[in-house]
Amino acid sequence: MIHDTLFSSLFEPRSIAFIGASSGIHKWGFNILHNIMRGGYDGALYPVNPQGGSWFGHDLYKSLDDIGRPVDLAVIIVPKEKVRAAVEQCGAKGIPAAVVITAGFSETGPEGARLEREVLDAARATGMRIVGPNTMGIFTGAPRRVQAIMAATMVKPGPVAVVAQSGNLATSLMFRYTRRGLGISRLVSSGNEADLTIEDYLELLEHDDMTRLICLYVEGLRDGRRFFETASRVSRNKPIVLIKGGTSDGGAKAAASHTGAIAGDTAIFASMCRQAGVIQARSVDEVTDISGLLLSQPEITGRRVGIITQGGGWGVIATDVCAEVGLEIPPLDDALVKKLDAILPEFWSRRNPVDLVAPGRVSAITDTIDLIVKSAGMDAILLLGLGYMTLRARRWMESPIIPREVSEKPATMMITEEKKLLDMVCEQVTRYGKPIIPVMDQIAFDEPADGNLPAYLDERGLMSYSSPEQAIRALAKAAEYYRWRRNARQSG
Amino acid sequence: MIHDTLFSSLFEPRSIAFIGASSGIHKWGFNILHNIMRGGYDGALYPVNPQGGSWFGHDLYKSLDDIGRPVDLAVIIVPKEKVRAAVEQCGAKGIPAAVVITAGFSETGPEGARLEREVLDAARATGMRIVGPNTMGIFTGAPRRVQAIMAATMVKPGPVAVVAQSGNLATSLMFRYTRRGLGISRLVSSGNEADLTIEDYLELLEHDDMTRLICLYVEGLRDGRRFFETASRVSRNKPIVLIKGGTSDGGAKAAASHTGAIAGDTAIFASMCRQAGVIQARSVDEVTDISGLLLSQPEITGRRVGIITQGGGWGVIATDVCAEVGLEIPPLDDALVKKLDAILPEFWSRRNPVDLVAPGRVSAITDTIDLIVKSAGMDAILLLGLGYMTLRARRWMESPIIPREVSEKPATMMITEEKKLLDMVCEQVTRYGKPIIPVMDQIAFDEPADGNLPAYLDERGLMSYSSPEQAIRALAKAAEYYRWRRNARQSG
Repeated sequence: MIHDTLFSSLFEPRSIAFIGASSGIHKWGFNILHNIMRGGYDGALYPVNPQGGSWFGHDLYKSLDDIGRPVDLAVIIVPKEKVRAAVEQCGAKGIPAAVVITAGFSETGPEGARLEREVLDAARATGMRIVGPNTMGIFTGAPRRVQAIMAATMVKPGPVAVVAQSGNLATSLMFRYTRRGLGISRLVSSGNEADLTIEDYLELLEHDDMTRLICLYVEGLRDGRRFFETASRVSRNKPIVLIKGGTSDGGAKAAASHTGAIAGDTAIFASMCRQAGVIQARSVDEVTDISGLLLSQPEITGRRVGIITQGGGWGVIATDVCAEVGLEIPPLDDALVKKLDAILPEFWSRRNPVDLVAPGRVSAITDTIDLIVKSAGMDAILLLGLGYMTLRARRWMESPIIPREVSEKPATMMITEEKKLLDMVCEQVTRYGKPIIPVMDQIAFDEPADGNLPAYLDERGLMSYSSPEQAIRALAKAAEYYRWRRNARQSG
Repeated sequence: MIHDTLFSSLFEPRSIAFIGASSGIHKWGFNILHNIMRGGYDGALYPVNPQGGSWFGHDLYKSLDDIGRPVDLAVIIVPKEKVRAAVEQCGAKGIPAAVVITAGFSETGPEGARLEREVLDAARATGMRIVGPNTMGIFTGAPRRVQAIMAATMVKPGPVAVVAQSGNLATSLMFRYTRRGLGISRLVSSGNEADLTIEDYLELLEHDDMTRLICLYVEGLRDGRRFFETASRVSRNKPIVLIKGGTSDGGAKAAASHTGAIAGDTAIFASMCRQAGVIQARSVDEVTDISGLLLSQPEITGRRVGIITQGGGWGVIATDVCAEVGLEIPPLDDALVKKLDAILPEFWSRRNPVDLVAPGRVSAITDTIDLIVKSAGMDAILLLGLGYMTLRARRWMESPIIPREVSEKPATMMITEEKKLLDMVCEQVTRYGKPIIPVMDQIAFDEPADGNLPAYLDERGLMSYSSPEQAIRALAKAAEYYRWRRNARQSG
């Protein structure tokens, strides 16, 4: 029950008191308030400043008492000496939770730790729960958009919950989840974890309908047993992708200095992750690669990969990386080779990777996918070297050399054809229930012009990758996770 | 001497015969000719087609004989049965080299191999040298821009030579070198290597003034001893960054099917690379990361790294990755801590990584760099968490909530200040002769608007990175290369 109240307070607040509203544009008391408004919060927002007055047309409340209506969540950003009093007042008003942005507590030494203890005691006395202190803030995507964070970029709402023991890692992850079209359900920068810990947030998110995947940045755990028990339960339904900070001696010391976290033994931590089905990623980019695959593609049920490529070199590289991460590239049997002979150009590779050379028609590609998925029992398909038809067509269109009446029809046809191919691939993913992963040089599509194929796929909810390496490493992690999940579910 | 003629013919052609000009927009005989023209070739271009007529306003020559002037380079793209005759005619005319785009030779089996042998014999009979067949083409940046390649994107000229035993790897590399602002001096897709091999191209590039770094994609070597002897000599002056395809059994088989290359033993190959100072990279992205560091930063002469960060989590992650790749994060001595105390906010980390918390003034950052480089004898500096001032300022400017008269002055100041910081960092790189590597979430700067800091740095020739991992892995490779080079030069 307290759980439900806490969840609603943090992630579904109908009203927010912002304690420490500032009109100084360089202050966080300005920027976070601005971010909440710009983020489109449509609940009741009460900015509080003891001097009253107004904040760019919004009335300021001199104190919590002046609000006179119930408040679901407090955001506190007053000088550190005044945090305790603010927390006491919030507690007295019956606010279930407060996000304490203010820094200068246990992360700074014994004196700060004493102050933090006083804040915590004040909260405990009234049952109020605390995020932080020393947090970058929280974001929630629905039912109301609350962007109570320092980072100054519009967060895209979506299915990923991010909990990070670092405000800047939270920011880096938020950028990537937003730009790759995945989006965020909840984001918590957990700060010093004086009260609520990463273990608590994980439990809170377990039954959150808006969250389909949980991404964690962990420097240290207060209660490793509880964390991994919860993680093991959560992983059966929602994948957890985790970055561990402090895996080296130096990193552990830096983490101790950063949030006071005790990093623990790296090998033991990794082994606990494997046992609990937690996917460990090595970088923020790998996190988004893995998340995109888990969220946008069906379960991969084995390790057999069919590679279909429009270039020999990419097929070679992809095969090497598959071998490195333990994915198999099974041979094609004679019957299948014969069937492919009927639809592919004379000099196709006659093996897996299927090098199409120049397939001519896009239907050759989708027919190849059909045949390989149906006849060869592949568990996933990698589709390498997309996008070149579109790039060539765009080159024709912009050329002063080729008259428009010559270029327009074939260029339009090529762009339409390649989009049709992607549409058909999306259909095949649904029809076969197997991952089919498009790979193309995304760097070539950075213009906002028509023909941005990665964006086209993002809109259709299918993650694409910029290199075979990225796709394959993510696929291997997904395969490992799903195998763990099948075992975990079978053993009940 | 023959070397000089070959070099000029391939990379400095004053005139080009394009044999197989086509007006069919889907043909390579159309697209490559179009790419040469659009690429801005300002030498004499003679498109040849036996039917004569014109190609979008350019006269077509019915045969080589009709040209009547000397030709430095031939590009041949006629049906495979006609390649031999074209080569004979080119040789008879005294053209020093031909790029044979046409495919269907040894990569397709014994019949194709026989045809390829005939083409080679025809070339040998006249002393003409051949690129390919089955090549994606060549690019050269100066003194004349020749974009005789299939890929339909404008290549940026610059200091990197790319030689690839795969047209699509060449394309992926070209995209990245172009978009990251580095640029290409020469690009050769070596195709089937019937005549000229990757060993030859490496020799040709050894004394090329336009080339400061050589990037190779290798599936197999005809003459490993010659390759590594040349590489070992070249590496003393120009770094070689290499991707090896076919490092797995499956990949080696795919390579054999792709270009007929014999991949050889992976461990021996890697050991030969280390001995010859060749930098092995694992992906096309790592290639550009490493290249950017080598080209845009001074030599790193040791393994001691100072980390200056505007966020604790990034410092933790960076420390972990440094430990993983064997870079050191030395402690700061008491005297230096005292000096930094005088310029940094109260709660800075007092250790390496130097966590600035919120530095307030940008001069605090550059002063910190000054102190750390001078007092602590660091060999390189990582600068983490840039860009947030600019992002926040842009948020203010675009906000309908904040009146323009409130936002404009501070926003302009913040953007100006952060650019000034980057200018000062560029200066410090020059002054101290040590790498200072900016890291920022580049993904946040994908809008073309003012304030694109990665592009700002690209223009100033300083490579920035989107994550600490990328920067540190590239730095470790650079450190290893420079150590090899110092040893190689010392031992004469």
